Amino acid sequence: MNIEEFIKKSEGEWRSMRSGHSMAFQQFEEIVSKIKIKILPKTDKEVIHLLESNNSLNKNIGSPFVINWNSESDWDVTNGSSSTNGSSILIPIPESAKEGLILRSLGYSEKIKVSSRYKFLCDGTLILSTKYTQTIAEERIWFASDNVRFRSSVVRSTDSSAILQSSHASELRKLNL
Amino acid sequence: MNIEEFIKKSEGEWRSMRSGHSMAFQQFEEIVSKIKIKILPKTDKEVIHLLESNNSLNKNIGSPFVINWNSESDWDVTNGSSSTNGSSILIPIPESAKEGLILRSLGYSEKIKVSSRYKFLCDGTLILSTKYTQTIAEERIWFASDNVRFRSSVVRSTDSSAILQSSHASELRKLNL
Repeated sequence: MNIEEFIKKSEGEWRSMRSGHSMAFQQFEEIVSKIKIKILPKTDKEVIHLLESNNSLNKNIGSPFVINWNSESDWDVTNGSSSTNGSSILIPIPESAKEGLILRSLGYSEKIKVSSRYKFLCDGTLILSTKYTQTIAEERIWFASDNVRFRSSVVRSTDSSAILQSSHASELRKLNL
Repeated sequence: MNIEEFIKKSEGEWRSMRSGHSMAFQQFEEIVSKIKIKILPKTDKEVIHLLESNNSLNKNIGSPFVINWNSESDWDVTNGSSSTNGSSILIPIPESAKEGLILRSLGYSEKIKVSSRYKFLCDGTLILSTKYTQTIAEERIWFASDNVRFRSSVVRSTDSSAILQSSHASELRKLNL
């Protein structure tokens, strides 16, 4: 598995069930999302903009793509539930067959522009590591079949490296039958 | 990582938060458990019995161990919640440095005596594959630190190989401070 194959396999619409575990407070969170993943042309205006703002215009890039999500969570301090939607542009910059960088216009554990390191395990699992300002996130994504993928994440504190939370998502491809 | 190191790292008491995802019905389940893992002597009566009933008395075995659990689930058709406890004896039979068999007195997705295949990924993740009568289960277990481990499982139908459910557990070692 390389990053181009992985992106191709991921393109499409997914229904996601995600569970979050807050380790310190032993609290569960349940999130249901619709996720769309779409490959973008390398000439896309926002792709060029993200490359420019990372001083990476002259780098050899893989297929840029955009992720759109629409999420419903059962957990919210004031209302009991909340919904969010957003989108993030991602641009892979391979350094070898199995690893490299991914630029993101919006991060996972903190909603800021970030750059993640990626690598593949020997069974094709993708591991993404991201250093944010206060947290370090590791995400692992793997396919159980062409139409089912799983996504686990662990978020640590940058200061203490204590594990703050973990989550697991089961993602089912929406098929147009 | 080999199976002996893995068992040694796993010995102790753990508090587990587990989320189950039923893929077909898009249902969540939340389970909180206490788990104890203890290495047993190879001469233990029940170990000998499990080896005998698998015609494996003359095999080269690794460290046998017993897992005890006490679980509370939020999901039960009649009562709204349920609790279970149980224990299972496991005996590794290594075939090489990275793979082999594990005999279990009680399985994961079906509560019967089973034998699982195990192997390690290059990052030390343990993968356990088990064929039951109606289901096939894959569990992956990895350590995020000495005192935190994660356990993901996928259960498929033997007939259709459709994915029936997945689960994710975050396990924190209970420290005696």
